[in-house]
Amino acid sequence: MSGSFLKWITCVDVAPYPHEGDEYLVQSRSTYVLKSHDGGMSLGLLLPIVVDKLRQFDEFLVDDRQRVLKLSSELNTLDKRNQAIARVAGTLRQQDAFDTLRGWRDELYVVYDDRKAPYFMAERAFCPLLGVVMYGVHIIGYVPPNVSSNGVLKIWVPRRSATKQTYPGMLDNTVAGGLGYPYGLQETCLKECYEEAGLDPEFVKQNCKSAGVLSYMYQHAREYETEAGLIQPEVEYVYDLTMDEENNIPHPVDNEAEDFKLMPVDEVLKRLEAGEFKPNCGAVIIDFLIRKGFITPEQEPNYHEIVARLHRLLPFPTM
Amino acid sequence: MSGSFLKWITCVDVAPYPHEGDEYLVQSRSTYVLKSHDGGMSLGLLLPIVVDKLRQFDEFLVDDRQRVLKLSSELNTLDKRNQAIARVAGTLRQQDAFDTLRGWRDELYVVYDDRKAPYFMAERAFCPLLGVVMYGVHIIGYVPPNVSSNGVLKIWVPRRSATKQTYPGMLDNTVAGGLGYPYGLQETCLKECYEEAGLDPEFVKQNCKSAGVLSYMYQHAREYETEAGLIQPEVEYVYDLTMDEENNIPHPVDNEAEDFKLMPVDEVLKRLEAGEFKPNCGAVIIDFLIRKGFITPEQEPNYHEIVARLHRLLPFPTM
Repeated sequence: MSGSFLKWITCVDVAPYPHEGDEYLVQSRSTYVLKSHDGGMSLGLLLPIVVDKLRQFDEFLVDDRQRVLKLSSELNTLDKRNQAIARVAGTLRQQDAFDTLRGWRDELYVVYDDRKAPYFMAERAFCPLLGVVMYGVHIIGYVPPNVSSNGVLKIWVPRRSATKQTYPGMLDNTVAGGLGYPYGLQETCLKECYEEAGLDPEFVKQNCKSAGVLSYMYQHAREYETEAGLIQPEVEYVYDLTMDEENNIPHPVDNEAEDFKLMPVDEVLKRLEAGEFKPNCGAVIIDFLIRKGFITPEQEPNYHEIVARLHRLLPFPTM
Repeated sequence: MSGSFLKWITCVDVAPYPHEGDEYLVQSRSTYVLKSHDGGMSLGLLLPIVVDKLRQFDEFLVDDRQRVLKLSSELNTLDKRNQAIARVAGTLRQQDAFDTLRGWRDELYVVYDDRKAPYFMAERAFCPLLGVVMYGVHIIGYVPPNVSSNGVLKIWVPRRSATKQTYPGMLDNTVAGGLGYPYGLQETCLKECYEEAGLDPEFVKQNCKSAGVLSYMYQHAREYETEAGLIQPEVEYVYDLTMDEENNIPHPVDNEAEDFKLMPVDEVLKRLEAGEFKPNCGAVIIDFLIRKGFITPEQEPNYHEIVARLHRLLPFPTM
């Protein structure tokens, strides 16, 4: 390995940190904070282009001096908030106000309050516009080093199908999926392993173990005038799934993946360095390889920065 | 397990984050930033009681309006800076200016610049006064689940000797040590495993694997008027050492530890919850148990916050 993996991590953890000074100041001055109906909680970061489209709705109050977008004080129950958010999202979709809404999924994501209770639910495709925290699970299916593999660890790596809307043809981690209401973490793991890779839920239950959680603040670009600048705080729960080479082989089911290939860890490292992985999946694999001792502080000059950026404390309540 | 481990993590990651608003503002207004000789880099955070004692030295310039303590512009080489820092630290020690300096170790720690080169070296006991990043290694020696243990993972846990200056009698992780000049990470691991636990370096080399790095900002208390408030950014490289129950048993050598006990993971969890571990060692074990799937997001209500706080991106250059 010649370079550093930091370049791929900074494609995922993009939004500036407070100590970056000027960069952070530009972000603070360019964005609006989404506040709860009582003004007490910060829930997300919005771009001005989004705030401008939200001015038409009674459900929100805009304070341009404080750069705050607050939910209306009347939205004082979960039900009222859910209905309000649904109406706003639906109207914006009808107006074709944002490209992001063309990816409408009919799937609800939960935004949490500071007591870890659901504060409101929103259509998945609307969440990036609100700049709220989104959750997912990522599962690395791997074959531990054993005699028949000459002591080499291998990872089951799928290639994203060429027809996917996002990152077609890129490499992915074994299974991943968003945390849609009303599914819990374990349920989502079992469901996604079955739907994406045809894995038997009983097998997954036995062999899948939680191994941490990543968090970062994604932006497609550090800019504040187009949808490319949408700020997306993400929390990705990571799981290690112990597999073998012969039984319970993953295979494409729902056309998310084109095929699955069992890659020795050296090949994974090479393809990571070449940028062949979808960035946030690459980040999950880098975390896995750090935890398993395949990326070491001796080889990787930015070891500490990589690990810290992948576990960012978000300035919003989380589940 | 009934509660949450977050209470032990917040004993380690103490200094407020920017999004904590008022708390952070108090910290910013109460501390001084240590800046490099050219003013370009922030290297640490100092308390006013330290700044006041440093005013007597030509080696530093104090700007009370900007709340900055800058190294003199003349300190434009590593050698000059090392000599200057040594003179200042030695004089303060002679003056018995701070309790912290009574723990003088005759051990140099390196402070890095933003190109990861040594910027200056300072006596270990002086570093907390400067508020600069300190480095260490923590090694968890564990016996993986096997047939003779009924499939139970066990950890080798030492008890700190009753005569230690800090945290006497508390539980610790298997081996830990600071990164003193001129030792590298691997060397420090081998050295500490030998000195603290009598482990054969060849055995450690074969079985010890890097598994990540923790970082946090410690303060004994969130206050700014006594040495208890010293701000100590720490970076702790973590290693997993695979051991067995019969060979290569750790044993006390240098009086750091009173004894070593092989604890089943359930006992470790109970003692962690009871607060029997030295806080930052407890944090390292909590990270280990999260990585190995013994603390899960289902059991631990503050799973994400724990993981994020243990991997804080520090607002200073690191090695």
